[in-house]
Amino acid sequence: MGNSFGTLFRVTTFGESHGPGLGVVVDGCPPRLPLDTAPIQRELDRRRPGQSRLVSQRKEPDQVAILSGVHDGLTLGTPIAMVIMNQDARSKDYEEVARAYRPSHADFTYDAKYGIRAIAGGGRASARETAGRVAAGAIAQQLLATRGVSIVAWVDEVGGLAASVDELTVTREAVDVNDLRCPDTAAAPQLIERVERARKDGDSIGGVIRAIARGVPAGWGEPVFDKLEADLAKAMMSIPAVKGVENGSGFAGTRMSGSEHNDLFYRRDDGRIGTRTNRSGGIQGGISNGEPITLRIAFKPTATIMRPQDTVDPEGNSAVLQPKGRHDPCVLPRAVPIVEAMIALVLADHALRQHARGFIAP
Amino acid sequence: MGNSFGTLFRVTTFGESHGPGLGVVVDGCPPRLPLDTAPIQRELDRRRPGQSRLVSQRKEPDQVAILSGVHDGLTLGTPIAMVIMNQDARSKDYEEVARAYRPSHADFTYDAKYGIRAIAGGGRASARETAGRVAAGAIAQQLLATRGVSIVAWVDEVGGLAASVDELTVTREAVDVNDLRCPDTAAAPQLIERVERARKDGDSIGGVIRAIARGVPAGWGEPVFDKLEADLAKAMMSIPAVKGVENGSGFAGTRMSGSEHNDLFYRRDDGRIGTRTNRSGGIQGGISNGEPITLRIAFKPTATIMRPQDTVDPEGNSAVLQPKGRHDPCVLPRAVPIVEAMIALVLADHALRQHARGFIAP
Amino acid sequence: MGNSFGTLFRVTTFGESHGPGLGVVVDGCPPRLPLDTAPIQRELDRRRPGQSRLVSQRKEPDQVAILSGVHDGLTLGTPIAMVIMNQDARSKDYEEVARAYRPSHADFTYDAKYGIRAIAGGGRASARETAGRVAAGAIAQQLLATRGVSIVAWVDEVGGLAASVDELTVTREAVDVNDLRCPDTAAAPQLIERVERARKDGDSIGGVIRAIARGVPAGWGEPVFDKLEADLAKAMMSIPAVKGVENGSGFAGTRMSGSEHNDLFYRRDDGRIGTRTNRSGGIQGGISNGEPITLRIAFKPTATIMRPQDTVDPEGNSAVLQPKGRHDPCVLPRAVPIVEAMIALVLADHALRQHARGFIAP
Amino acid sequence: MGNSFGTLFRVTTFGESHGPGLGVVVDGCPPRLPLDTAPIQRELDRRRPGQSRLVSQRKEPDQVAILSGVHDGLTLGTPIAMVIMNQDARSKDYEEVARAYRPSHADFTYDAKYGIRAIAGGGRASARETAGRVAAGAIAQQLLATRGVSIVAWVDEVGGLAASVDELTVTREAVDVNDLRCPDTAAAPQLIERVERARKDGDSIGGVIRAIARGVPAGWGEPVFDKLEADLAKAMMSIPAVKGVENGSGFAGTRMSGSEHNDLFYRRDDGRIGTRTNRSGGIQGGISNGEPITLRIAFKPTATIMRPQDTVDPEGNSAVLQPKGRHDPCVLPRAVPIVEAMIALVLADHALRQHARGFIAP
Repeated sequence: MGNSFGTLFRVTTFGESHGPGLGVVVDGCPPRLPLDTAPIQRELDRRRPGQSRLVSQRKEPDQVAILSGVHDGLTLGTPIAMVIMNQDARSKDYEEVARAYRPSHADFTYDAKYGIRAIAGGGRASARETAGRVAAGAIAQQLLATRGVSIVAWVDEVGGLAASVDELTVTREAVDVNDLRCPDTAAAPQLIERVERARKDGDSIGGVIRAIARGVPAGWGEPVFDKLEADLAKAMMSIPAVKGVENGSGFAGTRMSGSEHNDLFYRRDDGRIGTRTNRSGGIQGGISNGEPITLRIAFKPTATIMRPQDTVDPEGNSAVLQPKGRHDPCVLPRAVPIVEAMIALVLADHALRQHARGFIAP
Repeated sequence: MGNSFGTLFRVTTFGESHGPGLGVVVDGCPPRLPLDTAPIQRELDRRRPGQSRLVSQRKEPDQVAILSGVHDGLTLGTPIAMVIMNQDARSKDYEEVARAYRPSHADFTYDAKYGIRAIAGGGRASARETAGRVAAGAIAQQLLATRGVSIVAWVDEVGGLAASVDELTVTREAVDVNDLRCPDTAAAPQLIERVERARKDGDSIGGVIRAIARGVPAGWGEPVFDKLEADLAKAMMSIPAVKGVENGSGFAGTRMSGSEHNDLFYRRDDGRIGTRTNRSGGIQGGISNGEPITLRIAFKPTATIMRPQDTVDPEGNSAVLQPKGRHDPCVLPRAVPIVEAMIALVLADHALRQHARGFIAP
Repeated sequence: MGNSFGTLFRVTTFGESHGPGLGVVVDGCPPRLPLDTAPIQRELDRRRPGQSRLVSQRKEPDQVAILSGVHDGLTLGTPIAMVIMNQDARSKDYEEVARAYRPSHADFTYDAKYGIRAIAGGGRASARETAGRVAAGAIAQQLLATRGVSIVAWVDEVGGLAASVDELTVTREAVDVNDLRCPDTAAAPQLIERVERARKDGDSIGGVIRAIARGVPAGWGEPVFDKLEADLAKAMMSIPAVKGVENGSGFAGTRMSGSEHNDLFYRRDDGRIGTRTNRSGGIQGGISNGEPITLRIAFKPTATIMRPQDTVDPEGNSAVLQPKGRHDPCVLPRAVPIVEAMIALVLADHALRQHARGFIAP
Repeated sequence: MGNSFGTLFRVTTFGESHGPGLGVVVDGCPPRLPLDTAPIQRELDRRRPGQSRLVSQRKEPDQVAILSGVHDGLTLGTPIAMVIMNQDARSKDYEEVARAYRPSHADFTYDAKYGIRAIAGGGRASARETAGRVAAGAIAQQLLATRGVSIVAWVDEVGGLAASVDELTVTREAVDVNDLRCPDTAAAPQLIERVERARKDGDSIGGVIRAIARGVPAGWGEPVFDKLEADLAKAMMSIPAVKGVENGSGFAGTRMSGSEHNDLFYRRDDGRIGTRTNRSGGIQGGISNGEPITLRIAFKPTATIMRPQDTVDPEGNSAVLQPKGRHDPCVLPRAVPIVEAMIALVLADHALRQHARGFIAP
């Protein structure tokens, strides 16, 4: 259990890092949505390894096949199953892992929970699992686009070095301009250098991704437990390596007074009601208010490093781990499309939930 | 929809701030758990208004009645319904609210979503709704106690002023020693003074609550979407006024290298496998690892302030809001039992989910 | 677990037969539906004991109170909690039950499952639990009425004696014309006599309830597991004493050839596509086809009889049960509103699920 | 939505009849269950077309591939994805179907619901969809076997001709002894002749499948909505062509008095409490009582017949349908493994749900 997400737009992912294949089933996508593999493959290409020297060199084309739910370029309203077969599985790299628990990985906890695990590549705990999410998220983004909703995420901070990005104007094209996916072209070289240094040191580095969803109408989100920010927080924290999440003013807002923090309402030029500031991050009382939805997500440094580390084996005996193989010195560039996908899954689900509410015409 | 939480230990809350009553139904509590109203009422008393001059002066005894699911002091395994009738409902205080949207409240978004709302006291958007959660959380804490799991939360920061608390030794008794629920007795007076000042200014102040869950065994949490930290993040972000959440190293961890951040495994004196540091916050790969589970939760300053604010009415006309009535200058003291309750709901649910997994004996 | 029903129109019932109270929470009812207690109380009055000499003489007014979710006669879109307090609880009647398992009751299985049970009145296993369903079903019927959907159920057979009722024209008024709720006025006296005889004999009798839902548009039902007939079958079989259910031609249809059984399509005078026969019972491939939805539901004879029966006590020792107290010689008259309520809960849920699907305008 | 089934042992099927492929994801299977493709393929072979002259001659090997969740012959506790690629897809047979709605098929209702459909082979409405259920059910049966639970279903009636089968002793081997899957060797030839006649006539025939689950311990089933018989009824009615279901005495029980119908308790020789009769069909109050669970399931005659039929096209114009292609004159032989699979899915799910309840040791 735990491999499904969403209530009406519901995805179920499957697959281990080095098993035969992985993928996702999307149940609940409305019928007659134009869909082919191109936009899905494009997002998978942004997530796959081997894109640049900043990320893991595993060679995986991550070629997606749609098995069901689409006919003549339109969704049928039936489950959409998508499969990616695994190819570059160097299981021998993981022989040592079988004998020693990798620090801050899920080797120990999977053993504690299941009493068994697929060792090679981290099995189900591998970030490779997120390929299914990205494929599903691409569909969600197609659906949201029919209502004018768009999502952009970017690398905003690496190892404590912060970029400066105008969230209101940043585009996905500007994000993809460099390998780091940091749209601040002035600061990017320094941040990239920071990642390079970690890679050369056999070390790793963390950072912060920011994201914005534009065009979300007022009214999405289901109080009281399925508040929009609550489901977004869950979505973000379910991404491997995420240790923190903020909506709107986040932790910085805790240091303000109410008179400074409150977002005053006014009538926009277009007649709609808006707020003069957006410390609420687009959500009030669990419901979108029509302003852009803003998130900050904290990624810890990658647990895999190319340095010897003290650890234990499954019997508790001391061991020294000397990793071999490929590693991502910084997961953030590849995490950008994952963040966007998970935001899209939350929004698509809440869009449908709110649509159902309109059963009694006003 | 959205008023239920949990898969196997599942709670459903109901009730508006100024309606006839509110409460909760707990479905899935195992049978034969010793239970009476005392521990439930004790937690409700920690949450209710009017406890001290730091919080709202609304007079609500919040007396709970158990309607079902308990017989002769033991749970039956059937749904436990608990009801609290509302008493001190000064609806006249809210007449102005009917005409103007309160900034950073949910008045506007509820109208946008539902096309109708119970205006007095914020209706369903009132933090009063959390009484049901606290009642349910008290049962979850009774259940967790049978496995040696305990939870402590405390006020760690107010308006940027930080306390210094040893998370490994802090107790609930130490937390409740003052009205602020800040167990750092040296720093507490200064923090309390900060809240007092906000109250006198007709303003409000935010802050940070920290929490720890001790005794959670390795193995709880359901990858990949229902990771333990993901469900905890959702639980925290579903609490009114929360804008951020961290597990373990959180945002600070993003500024460390992997070689600094990784938690090295070792064999404890008791033979179990532990980690020398706990930057993972007790969770690795979505599953508890046997270390204490740690959280930091950001609360924005209370939206209700006793100062005039510019706003609009439902038609978009400019208005000035001059609030009357009672207000919480700082929600954190009353939020401490809510945080504990929500953590307990997550852990009780995951305890049962992991227990189900043991169907095939090892 | 197991006390909730529905996906978008979701009800959770609670309460034991002789505990403090029972009721239901309805989550997901759309906002702005006109609602007061009158139609709810009317349905509860049709279900309550003591209506006539044909049913149990327990004195329960079953007075419902709405605690939340309704304001000024309109639903708020928030959870609607309804509570009925228990009054006439003669626990002493059940002293013997504590010592011996009643045949074909749930005493033994509740002990086997929970290791504890509320003995008086059958606790949670009492048909008294269905009061919450009937209250929720009354709301669902209000919702369905906004789309022209209506439901009628009636007693069609008692102890093998069959009535003859035209399903296309029967009305609820015609059903309620006698105590048995059998609208065949010619046959009813004989059927009532059959129930009377069972009562005098200290025995009980079963029968068949038929039901029809009119006005359901084509398109409701969610293949492949949540087919409309599948959810209806579950709803019916969840009613105490039900042992069988049929949709459309049911078991009789198994004896026909395909060329006899198929429902031929034609264009109706109003332009819509209809079928010349309705052996499909209004559902094809799990989806309503616009024809009336028809069901037959088998109720076993009431397990409680006023005769001595051989049984065992919880330790397995032989015992003779000599029941005292009140009994329903035939549950069918009171089951009619329960059947209607459960059909309404299924249809309301599927109405909302199908409405959500229309997110992309055709 | 509607393509998933189960709470803790949860399956999600996908796939259209003539799309690229179909399959199922099983989430929640406990870890360390011995599993390979052999028992899964064996069940699929019992369901596939082309087994005998009694069923459709479509040539589909239905070769299953496990993509995830199994490693070295043991389940991992992670999702098990299984895929079957489609091969024999004669789309041209369905050209006429595009123009006219087939009577008693789901062509019209899919159009009404989704506004689009995959025409060839019935798309998602094809019984081919059940291949995923059978694959998942094979895993559920492996799981149940670890607790001594076994399931047998058989063809008990065809076109009104009834076999005579002792439910307490019938085995799966005895069922598979002939093409009809009717273990009454005396009656089977006559029933087979009845199917043959329908095939020769270009017509079809319905019938009744009976099923028994042995070894289910007392205590499975979740009152009040997820009663064991309720979930079984839903499972059965979700199978294509099913129009009725009975548990235990079913409709026949409605003609008995309570004194005849009640199952008297006694102490078995092995010390357990049993019942002298089993009119309850192994379930009382929604919970298994340790007796065999018995079901009767009504299958309507196959809608596809090789005779001209009056119908309409999507615009409502009159049309005559002259089917071509392959047809099953009687679906029952192939439905036997589907019935067994669906029963297994219900029981596996309830086994885990009851296991979770044992969190507090007695």
